[in-house]
Amino acid sequence: MKQTHQADLKAYRAGNGFIGRYQQIIRETVIPYQYAVLNDRIEGAEKSHAVQNFINAGAALRGEEPGDGFYGWVFQDSDVAKWLEAVAYSLANHPDSELEATADQVIDYVAAAQDEDGYLNTYFTIKDREKRWQNLMEAHEMYCAGHMMEAACAYYEATGKDKLLKVMEKNAEHIYRLFVTEGHEGYPGHPEIELALMKMYRLTGNMHCLELAKHLVDVRGVDADFYRKEKAKRDWSVWSSNVFEPDYAQNGKPVREQNEATGHSVRAVYLYTGMADLAGETDDPTLLAACDRLWNNITQKRMYLTGGIGSTVHGEAFTVDYDLPNDTAYAETCASIGLVFFASRMLENKVDRRYADVMERAFYNTVLAGMQLDGKRFFYVNPLEVVPGISGVAATQRHDLPQRPGWYSCACCPPNVARMITSLGKYAYGENESTAFCHLFADGEICFDNGLKLSCETEYPYGFDVTWRVLEGTKTLAVRIPGWSKKWEMTVNGSSADCQMKDGYVYLDVTAGDEICLKLDSTPYFVYGSTKVPKLSGKTALCRGPLVYCFEGVDNDGDVLSLAVKDGSLPKALDYNADLLNGTVQVKLDAVRFADDGELYSMAAPKEEACEAIAVPYYTWGNRGKNQMRVWMERK
Amino acid sequence: MKQTHQADLKAYRAGNGFIGRYQQIIRETVIPYQYAVLNDRIEGAEKSHAVQNFINAGAALRGEEPGDGFYGWVFQDSDVAKWLEAVAYSLANHPDSELEATADQVIDYVAAAQDEDGYLNTYFTIKDREKRWQNLMEAHEMYCAGHMMEAACAYYEATGKDKLLKVMEKNAEHIYRLFVTEGHEGYPGHPEIELALMKMYRLTGNMHCLELAKHLVDVRGVDADFYRKEKAKRDWSVWSSNVFEPDYAQNGKPVREQNEATGHSVRAVYLYTGMADLAGETDDPTLLAACDRLWNNITQKRMYLTGGIGSTVHGEAFTVDYDLPNDTAYAETCASIGLVFFASRMLENKVDRRYADVMERAFYNTVLAGMQLDGKRFFYVNPLEVVPGISGVAATQRHDLPQRPGWYSCACCPPNVARMITSLGKYAYGENESTAFCHLFADGEICFDNGLKLSCETEYPYGFDVTWRVLEGTKTLAVRIPGWSKKWEMTVNGSSADCQMKDGYVYLDVTAGDEICLKLDSTPYFVYGSTKVPKLSGKTALCRGPLVYCFEGVDNDGDVLSLAVKDGSLPKALDYNADLLNGTVQVKLDAVRFADDGELYSMAAPKEEACEAIAVPYYTWGNRGKNQMRVWMERK
Repeated sequence: MKQTHQADLKAYRAGNGFIGRYQQIIRETVIPYQYAVLNDRIEGAEKSHAVQNFINAGAALRGEEPGDGFYGWVFQDSDVAKWLEAVAYSLANHPDSELEATADQVIDYVAAAQDEDGYLNTYFTIKDREKRWQNLMEAHEMYCAGHMMEAACAYYEATGKDKLLKVMEKNAEHIYRLFVTEGHEGYPGHPEIELALMKMYRLTGNMHCLELAKHLVDVRGVDADFYRKEKAKRDWSVWSSNVFEPDYAQNGKPVREQNEATGHSVRAVYLYTGMADLAGETDDPTLLAACDRLWNNITQKRMYLTGGIGSTVHGEAFTVDYDLPNDTAYAETCASIGLVFFASRMLENKVDRRYADVMERAFYNTVLAGMQLDGKRFFYVNPLEVVPGISGVAATQRHDLPQRPGWYSCACCPPNVARMITSLGKYAYGENESTAFCHLFADGEICFDNGLKLSCETEYPYGFDVTWRVLEGTKTLAVRIPGWSKKWEMTVNGSSADCQMKDGYVYLDVTAGDEICLKLDSTPYFVYGSTKVPKLSGKTALCRGPLVYCFEGVDNDGDVLSLAVKDGSLPKALDYNADLLNGTVQVKLDAVRFADDGELYSMAAPKEEACEAIAVPYYTWGNRGKNQMRVWMERK
Repeated sequence: MKQTHQADLKAYRAGNGFIGRYQQIIRETVIPYQYAVLNDRIEGAEKSHAVQNFINAGAALRGEEPGDGFYGWVFQDSDVAKWLEAVAYSLANHPDSELEATADQVIDYVAAAQDEDGYLNTYFTIKDREKRWQNLMEAHEMYCAGHMMEAACAYYEATGKDKLLKVMEKNAEHIYRLFVTEGHEGYPGHPEIELALMKMYRLTGNMHCLELAKHLVDVRGVDADFYRKEKAKRDWSVWSSNVFEPDYAQNGKPVREQNEATGHSVRAVYLYTGMADLAGETDDPTLLAACDRLWNNITQKRMYLTGGIGSTVHGEAFTVDYDLPNDTAYAETCASIGLVFFASRMLENKVDRRYADVMERAFYNTVLAGMQLDGKRFFYVNPLEVVPGISGVAATQRHDLPQRPGWYSCACCPPNVARMITSLGKYAYGENESTAFCHLFADGEICFDNGLKLSCETEYPYGFDVTWRVLEGTKTLAVRIPGWSKKWEMTVNGSSADCQMKDGYVYLDVTAGDEICLKLDSTPYFVYGSTKVPKLSGKTALCRGPLVYCFEGVDNDGDVLSLAVKDGSLPKALDYNADLLNGTVQVKLDAVRFADDGELYSMAAPKEEACEAIAVPYYTWGNRGKNQMRVWMERK
């Protein structure tokens, strides 16, 4: 049984704080820009054709010429889906009739591209209907379906309009019929539909959605050799790719027997999200135990301090325990988004700070770093160290760019960031009948289904006071005390609170009129890595609250490689600077600078000079031109 | 004008010291094993077929069926050539009539595989004569020819037998006719023949060899687009490879305009060796200046402390300045051998310690590390840090193995190590009419052409006293004082010597009966990397004499990741231990061990405990099972 569930889409309305400002950037910049890209209206951006693919597929189904045919990746449809999902989230709390009309139009295109039997995929509908469902390994049919199901749920929740939801129920029914009723073999090469079907099930009550999700989870990896056999049956492929190593698509063993997070990291966390959701909904202790093991493996051995996962560019994948290189990192933005999904589902199954702490770590660091502060450029890859001249140039670091590039042709990350930020309320707040949960500190108003209505005021992650006012209702309020906050203080109506603490959450009975104040620790602090991580030996990283800090050349005389943090330094947070990096707090600390004598190798220890160093939050890096950046610093 | 030249092959006869013992391993283990591999007589080793290819090519030329045809890489012939060269060097000072008869037989096979017109290459002779010289980019025809020329020179010098030399003169004439007389366009994709032709020229006086070498150096990179054009003219390729990036084969610009060491590192240093040799022989100041720039770029910005070069597995190549990762290193053994060649030619052009220092660094560290101490297994790749469980497993480090594997199918490194060690005298000693040069400290006897005969007694690199006795002649003796030896003392016949020092060499007039003693500094010392190298920030490495040391788990409680070197530690060399690692000296020093609290990331600084750490010479690593190894250590 789930202990709690995410807040409804419309429950949270952001204020003018940090989250609200980010949602505004998505609304005003990212969503319109993304729509223009999807329609090939941005000069210089790579061709997308994603909307036109739906129009053309509709024409093909009507027996007309499919215009200029299909263009793009085999998973091009998912870009439209993710855009629709982000639009839905945005509309939920910021009605915009023009945007809604645009989305309705796109939904009409999507609906028209659905085959009579419920099939929906522009690639195969336009190019070759006979090849449907023959290449589960590469062809992303269920992946695209899953994203459109998520969009459908979101759009229905936001607008009450069920056109897309009905399309996707019909699509789910088509897939159910094929895979469950008719016994078509296999499971998707890229998990995603599992988590989407769980959303569909909850919204529609359609048991076929639940059963299909369970079926796809159950059969995965039972035949680890499935993709090889599948490939042997056909004479075509999408990418001429070799057969996946089974670990690459998390199908080396049945999912209930898996112990280590392997392979493509986005696939992995999307799968685990679906598994965790299913385990909670169906009370499946074996599946939940697998999720626990996978969670522990990721968060205790394979996760960057920034919440990045998937440390290698080779296959955008997990590697082995403790292999967390800073400079050759992959740490895809989408993978950290998926980690937030996974964390949120784990948190529903068991309210425990450790899930929310990771969710917060991933969101405030890697996810936000994925987007330029103006919302116009994006990182796929989020290294923890960048040295212009080497990063982006040397063969092993060609993917680690010192600055965010423009819109990619493979546009998975930007719309993923957009939907994550616009739906943050679902992750920040949870509830059950008796209790309202504050997992993250997001200012604004929250109306829980259970009747509690709160306002939340905070400058988080730059202010460390959080004030909730109970506007309506009488319930238990559960507030996470973040693991990093070694000191904290909670008052209710000005008096020290008599609070119960369980698994990192404070539980308080509250009623309308109550004012709850939480003071978290604003002191910058150092973090040290396990000695098992080769790349972290002797190093330290600076943090404040949920924010990991980094050192950029622009703040440090152009050179952070020669800097070491002074052991015993008491880092000092400077005043909030509204004019810097969309508003931020720098941290100043004592450091040592090593002199360079010009030799590649020298027998003399480098001269050391005491100095001050300046750090900025990791999520803001790379917004001030190409320059060095380093998270993990030498200690001196 | 060259200031000096390498000692003759037969000038140096090793004693029973370090070099002599290594030559014995080559003689007794590597050469016989390698011959068995080349003839496919070792069970479990990958098929070579290299000798049979020559037999089959001979049959093809006689119009017979070419047996079982060609097998192996397009450059398979070069394995036979390198074996012959190593055999020649070994025979030079250790006559062995059985081995010589075997080599004569192989030479007969080679001679029989030469076409009437002088062409010699089993791949094309067996597979398709019509395709000769149409794929300079990939096909290694000149590379194989170059290696066989080197073997021919060596075998003639060692045995006085000129059969192979005549074969290769005819081959050189064939290539000269085609490329110089008839103007066939292009230059070899893998340089090597240039340096070999210079050897042929010096031995035979054949001006066509010199002219051909100069031609191939002169035309290289003049048309940077040559390989693309060449590829467009044919409908076949050897590896279906794409056209090289021009920098990959050092042909982005004419060689005289090149400033940075680029591309495949073995190709690069083989080319630069030929260029340096040609520049000295022909008094070509522009070419020499290019060599100087390339030398400086390598040794001041792109070389590991161990003398390893070519830091990336991608193309086995140089990358960019200061990109010297320890764990993802490539640092191919052959590349360091090529760096020794380059250094030796630079030293001929100008006697300066800095060339010999690098030669010594590469030889005693990466080259020797390339071979297991028993001569039976080899590293291609020489990382400066290895963590079992990550190294050899994680995608970015799959090439960095924790233990030497068996004989590779691409067997370039083992025979290269063999020829380097057996010919060490050429690199250790040099001469001109007036002066005998001791570049390296290699015990044994040396008969210089100029009439000076010396004995050299030393336990180097474990003993730091070197004693030369002048057995015959009266000349100037020039002895390098290594850059790492900050203190040194020289006596002649027991009295402090009145020595002139120039560019790191001591010059002394000596005569028969003189005894010259040099005391070098035996104190272990720390080295620090430039702050421009991201991977060396705050780190230090331990050295003693020419030996770089490393820390292995087996000496340090199984864990070197949690160790830091104590700043101010005075490392102590232990007594020579004849029973350890074929005889070595461990170094003990004060260290700090960081405790691991089991957390991936912790807010508490790791507890520190003072301890002792043990280091062993880098060249001995990986001889005691899989275990952690690290050269660059944290300082505490």
